Amino acid sequence: MSTVGNSTNIFWQESPIGKTERQKLINQKGCVVWITGLSGSGKSTLACSLSRELYTRGKLSYILDGDNLRHGLNKDLGFKAEDRVENIRRVGEVGKLFADAGLICIASLISPYRKDRDACREMMHDSSFVEVYMNMSLQLCEARDPKGLYKLARAGKIKGFTGIDDPYESPLNCEIELKEKEGECPSPVAMAEELVTPRDFLAPPCSVSSSASLSSSSAASLSLSAPTSASIPIAILTPISFSAPFQRIVQFAPSLRVLLVTFSTLIL
Amino acid sequence: MSTVGNSTNIFWQESPIGKTERQKLINQKGCVVWITGLSGSGKSTLACSLSRELYTRGKLSYILDGDNLRHGLNKDLGFKAEDRVENIRRVGEVGKLFADAGLICIASLISPYRKDRDACREMMHDSSFVEVYMNMSLQLCEARDPKGLYKLARAGKIKGFTGIDDPYESPLNCEIELKEKEGECPSPVAMAEELVTPRDFLAPPCSVSSSASLSSSSAASLSLSAPTSASIPIAILTPISFSAPFQRIVQFAPSLRVLLVTFSTLIL
Repeated sequence: MSTVGNSTNIFWQESPIGKTERQKLINQKGCVVWITGLSGSGKSTLACSLSRELYTRGKLSYILDGDNLRHGLNKDLGFKAEDRVENIRRVGEVGKLFADAGLICIASLISPYRKDRDACREMMHDSSFVEVYMNMSLQLCEARDPKGLYKLARAGKIKGFTGIDDPYESPLNCEIELKEKEGECPSPVAMAEELVTPRDFLAPPCSVSSSASLSSSSAASLSLSAPTSASIPIAILTPISFSAPFQRIVQFAPSLRVLLVTFSTLIL
Repeated sequence: MSTVGNSTNIFWQESPIGKTERQKLINQKGCVVWITGLSGSGKSTLACSLSRELYTRGKLSYILDGDNLRHGLNKDLGFKAEDRVENIRRVGEVGKLFADAGLICIASLISPYRKDRDACREMMHDSSFVEVYMNMSLQLCEARDPKGLYKLARAGKIKGFTGIDDPYESPLNCEIELKEKEGECPSPVAMAEELVTPRDFLAPPCSVSSSASLSSSSAASLSLSAPTSASIPIAILTPISFSAPFQRIVQFAPSLRVLLVTFSTLIL
């Protein structure tokens, strides 16, 4: 019996079939790919493309889209500070369940506050949380404004809009960072081209990466993010080329590239 | 743009990979198996057994256990009336997501109020909601009292305990009903025997059933539940034998049994 949160007299129920069995069953590693960034930065586009690409590789993924969840699980929440916190918390908890179920769960939501994202990372005891930062400038996102929300925010019709009158706290230790090229918002065509061109990718030395493909619909380039000892970047980006800093790592660990490929087959 | 619940300025994001694709990928039909009944009625035992049996058949399931979720997603909720409603609602919403992901989602929680369960059923637009009623008597559950909660409730140390000082509203139109035999709480041994003995199962005339196996750890017998036009019983009980009322249906539709078997292969 335990008291947890506001619940008392509750028991933990173990299941005979655990994450390990489920992962074996569908031959993949359950994880959460958490895509964060400003409105209009291409999170949903990336989520959809990633889902499609994983599907073509026979991998089961599921998208937790911030807006979509506000039609269901989170429809009782608004955009007050405490509601935003609760919104992120619930997505984190559901993402954890999906990862535990063995799925590659793609969470796509602005999630502007570092503290809230880190709390979701902390939920994942086995470090299968992959934070993807859509590092697109406000200027670029506002120029795109695919939902017309920046206009409304500038006109004062939406209050507390991230990037306008509410802050976005960029990740300090994300696994993957995506940037625009020369201030240009990537087009779907550019994305298609990007699919077949090499990308930079830097994995933390102690982590594993993979050769699975990212068919993103944004022609973003991958840049280096600081290694985090608590994180394991997953296997979503290919073809892989190694950035200069990574090449330096490879000088000290010539077999690392082999390891990366090996692990990628385990993960994806 | 839409206003949904307490959220405004939100958009629905379509994914290129939908439920159909995911179901094809893992060769099963996503659904929610909602197990309801008194504390101590064997819900968790059934959930675990069902999960194990599905696993042996290569099917991916995931258990949403009421108590377990109170350690995470629902840890902000207590047992007040409004908290109970919200608890069930969230499990329903998450179950819907899992079903949409293609999984056989097994929700196991007392869920005492008909209205709340029906609300969860209503969430599932494609009628893949299977309500399983653990129809065990209060006397039997209280005699088992596996968590010692009935004792606490009788001593007044737990208020609003279902079956003692809070009502349990039995389903009117559940797909599957499980009953004890002659007032006896089934033992695991009896359950194991039950696995290989024929069971009664009545499917709604317009619905499909299956021949997949239920390795429940309760020696419960399956009895007839009223047909519901909005429901599709899934494929969890085998070997199937047909109850007398169902035999009458078969008289009018001699090919129905063939249909059942055919559909079972589609579903599981």
